[in-house]
Amino acid sequence: MKKNIQALSIVFVGAGNLATNLAKALFREGFHIDQVYSRTVESAYSLAQYINAKYTTSLVDLKPDADLYIVSLKDSAFVELINEICEAKNSNALFVHTAGSIPMSIWSNHVQNYGVFYPMQTFSKQREVDFREIPFFIEASSPKHCNLLKEIAHTISDKVYDATSEQRKSLHLAAVFTCNFTNHMYALADELLEKYGLPFETMLPLIDETARKVHQLTPKQAQTGPAIRYDEGVIGKHLEMLADDKQMQQLYELISKSIHDRSK
Amino acid sequence: MKKNIQALSIVFVGAGNLATNLAKALFREGFHIDQVYSRTVESAYSLAQYINAKYTTSLVDLKPDADLYIVSLKDSAFVELINEICEAKNSNALFVHTAGSIPMSIWSNHVQNYGVFYPMQTFSKQREVDFREIPFFIEASSPKHCNLLKEIAHTISDKVYDATSEQRKSLHLAAVFTCNFTNHMYALADELLEKYGLPFETMLPLIDETARKVHQLTPKQAQTGPAIRYDEGVIGKHLEMLADDKQMQQLYELISKSIHDRSK
Repeated sequence: MKKNIQALSIVFVGAGNLATNLAKALFREGFHIDQVYSRTVESAYSLAQYINAKYTTSLVDLKPDADLYIVSLKDSAFVELINEICEAKNSNALFVHTAGSIPMSIWSNHVQNYGVFYPMQTFSKQREVDFREIPFFIEASSPKHCNLLKEIAHTISDKVYDATSEQRKSLHLAAVFTCNFTNHMYALADELLEKYGLPFETMLPLIDETARKVHQLTPKQAQTGPAIRYDEGVIGKHLEMLADDKQMQQLYELISKSIHDRSK
Repeated sequence: MKKNIQALSIVFVGAGNLATNLAKALFREGFHIDQVYSRTVESAYSLAQYINAKYTTSLVDLKPDADLYIVSLKDSAFVELINEICEAKNSNALFVHTAGSIPMSIWSNHVQNYGVFYPMQTFSKQREVDFREIPFFIEASSPKHCNLLKEIAHTISDKVYDATSEQRKSLHLAAVFTCNFTNHMYALADELLEKYGLPFETMLPLIDETARKVHQLTPKQAQTGPAIRYDEGVIGKHLEMLADDKQMQQLYELISKSIHDRSK
């Protein structure tokens, strides 16, 4: 490994939302990303252009002599492609993945030096995020590589932690509730408002306050609304309004029940 | 009605989260709240003290000659108590409620002047909110009273709108998804993290970014995570982790299905 971490030769395997945001953040800190792989030309090309890297859509053309391979693929694709990714590469190279729910041990039969580099955040290509606030959870096959990964993470974030594969899996599950499911609640509200001809913007102060509130109160303390009071009049009216969408109605009922049951 | 709105004699019927926050905000703008009613002494007393008002726990002692009665009760209690609230009061008085899902017409058989004064926000007694950002939705039995209510709302908020009872009901339903259900997603994450011995604070950057994101992208564009990709490996692992809590497991499955179905 080279002394100056910015001089490392880095390859990104994957050019999705996470890879795109992470590669751009590293690029801005002076890292050299030599190559980007993606299954689709559009993704590979558009990321590679931004970060001044070469690109390929074929794993057999993956640069064999890089120092660090950062693999950021859909979990099922990763499991399928790990053999090809690891084959005939520099034996001193470090391989990391960025997935919340895949254990570090997935690498152990394939390469010598490996780890996990997990930034816990929601990434979309259309939006650049402030990396300084993003917690990074790091794991590696040796203390030396763990330190190296932490050093890299620290160049872009102020929040770098050790986490075992077990802990990371738990964080990922919690993050699905906190972020993906929360965003879906926004999406369902958006759908309802569109049906009634009302603008989604009216919800933004409420969305912001709901998020700010849990900086001060626990989510349990912060809970309000008809479900916690179990106001049957309101709940009944709402279920009626959702009668033409059985899936949304079922969701409303189940979430309300869960709120009420947990309030006891 | 008096010319100077700050000189109105106001009575609050209810001293819950919404009433407490609204009464304090009006008090800070120089309004005189003469009396607070609540079923419980603690709530009545603690709000009354703060806003320098009298208090009662008995509806028969409600001041009969106020100018404005602001009723902010649980919906079922309101329906039950409306007779008593309206009985033998100043016939020129204006009666308003603050409920999202109760039509304005509920007043029509009881009093002459009535309306709705609905601030769409999540209120907790332990937390003071910035009212300037909160949208108020106003409806009244006459244009004169509608204007008066808007004038009052404008003293504390920059966002004051007309809304029919139908529109208000739709906004309230959307707000339940946006706020109450979202907060419950935070609560479930909190519960999981506690089980695994991890701090909820790690989720705050994710919560904040999820909220900020929908200022720029639609919720549909902002959606990320295993459900939208339908990453069966991850979803299967998560369902396994939730095996000891059937309700949470069912929620995970149903929300994931809803995300995936709506992404098509």
